[in-house]
Amino acid sequence: MAEEMDIFSKIPEVGYAEQSTYNNPQEFEKLCEARRSCRVYTDEHVPEEVMRKCLSLALLAPNSSNLQCWQFYWVRTPDVKNKIVKACLSQPAARTAQELVVAVAHPQMWRTTGPLMLKTFEEQKDVEVPRSAIMYYKKLVPLAYNQGFLGLLGLGKRVVLFFRGLKKPTPRGPVSKNDMKVWAHKSTALACQQLMLSFRAHGYDTCPMEGYDETLIKKAIKMPKGGEPCMVISVGKRAENGIYGPRIRFDDSLFIHEV
Amino acid sequence: MAEEMDIFSKIPEVGYAEQSTYNNPQEFEKLCEARRSCRVYTDEHVPEEVMRKCLSLALLAPNSSNLQCWQFYWVRTPDVKNKIVKACLSQPAARTAQELVVAVAHPQMWRTTGPLMLKTFEEQKDVEVPRSAIMYYKKLVPLAYNQGFLGLLGLGKRVVLFFRGLKKPTPRGPVSKNDMKVWAHKSTALACQQLMLSFRAHGYDTCPMEGYDETLIKKAIKMPKGGEPCMVISVGKRAENGIYGPRIRFDDSLFIHEV
Repeated sequence: MAEEMDIFSKIPEVGYAEQSTYNNPQEFEKLCEARRSCRVYTDEHVPEEVMRKCLSLALLAPNSSNLQCWQFYWVRTPDVKNKIVKACLSQPAARTAQELVVAVAHPQMWRTTGPLMLKTFEEQKDVEVPRSAIMYYKKLVPLAYNQGFLGLLGLGKRVVLFFRGLKKPTPRGPVSKNDMKVWAHKSTALACQQLMLSFRAHGYDTCPMEGYDETLIKKAIKMPKGGEPCMVISVGKRAENGIYGPRIRFDDSLFIHEV
Repeated sequence: MAEEMDIFSKIPEVGYAEQSTYNNPQEFEKLCEARRSCRVYTDEHVPEEVMRKCLSLALLAPNSSNLQCWQFYWVRTPDVKNKIVKACLSQPAARTAQELVVAVAHPQMWRTTGPLMLKTFEEQKDVEVPRSAIMYYKKLVPLAYNQGFLGLLGLGKRVVLFFRGLKKPTPRGPVSKNDMKVWAHKSTALACQQLMLSFRAHGYDTCPMEGYDETLIKKAIKMPKGGEPCMVISVGKRAENGIYGPRIRFDDSLFIHEV
């Protein structure tokens, strides 16, 4: 347990330094202002290299423990596209889209990416990987994310963490399959936002959609068991009537609290 | 039902047009490359106007049905900060941070923001708000997001939607309190990513944290019932040893699927 806490609280010696002097707030503000959810697109094609570039940039988003629990299904065949449009209730944002991407949250991805992290550490020659990081992926990740058969292991963890939490600061989850869903959706959404901003930076609009028939989406993309659709993102050039009205946001004071 | 479908599939006449010629992919790529999760910060202060600006920009993120189901608790008092640091297991990313923001997902926010959308529509003079939009917030939003006492209404909806789904494309959720959590966390995470990019665009680093004692976080910020912490984001100037190693991402082919 002492070691477990050290993993979190000690600053490791890694012998690595990466500077950044990036600073361009005005440009980012313009980008945020320019991004609007677009409901109607023109028939202008989105170049393949733009699609690939934006999808790759999305994968640079931060994510939980770098376990990259996301997948992006880029819809390229007319048959699949038709099915996704129908699953999205034929809404114009899907129907008129040039491209559709189904973002999938993958609660089981740690089983693949956890070991890949360890493999990458082994291969890293220039960086001294601290023992705590290796222990983290070897021991803590499986302990934290495996909920066991029917979630029974999670139930056991909930009890242990409750009692531990009476004495000291203790993460209370994830301890159920639902917690794992939330876990995966959060990281996937971080990447989705990077994806949408990326398209806007390339001169294209997007619309994130959640109003769809999940069962039909899964069938259309032949999604292997385990994942679940997070959102469908449509892409294209906005039509004259693509934006349904001025942006509506309520007063900041409703959402930002100083404590 | 026919009308319900029209809400989704018809393109409304709104008499509104908003162009965008924003295009600067190189700058956004630089920003994505520059954003790294920072674990150790210097003692350089983050100006108050940067904090306010970035928090405001975060609120421009897209979100589910524009119901803005997010809250950001900006930690400003030393006592609360100490408590949050402890709740974050005293990890350096929290301990050395200049600023801490607790992002909270709020599954009940639609009860406040749904009516606010209707009020805003009434006040809009320049735009012709389509009847479908008014019906959407008046009828569909409460129907979709209210899960009832003990989630019993949600259970009923699950059955109805299952049978409807046998015949035509039908959204299968949200039909439970857990679905509502996922719903709120997704939108909140979209805003979190915009927040982190915004800080980097202003020359500051961030670290999103999930390894915390949720119970202690809630107590520290005196969070009203209903919401739940999505992530804690620390902010500051990166120290020499702030980045623990080169960015690790696995091959795109693991995450991007063409279908």
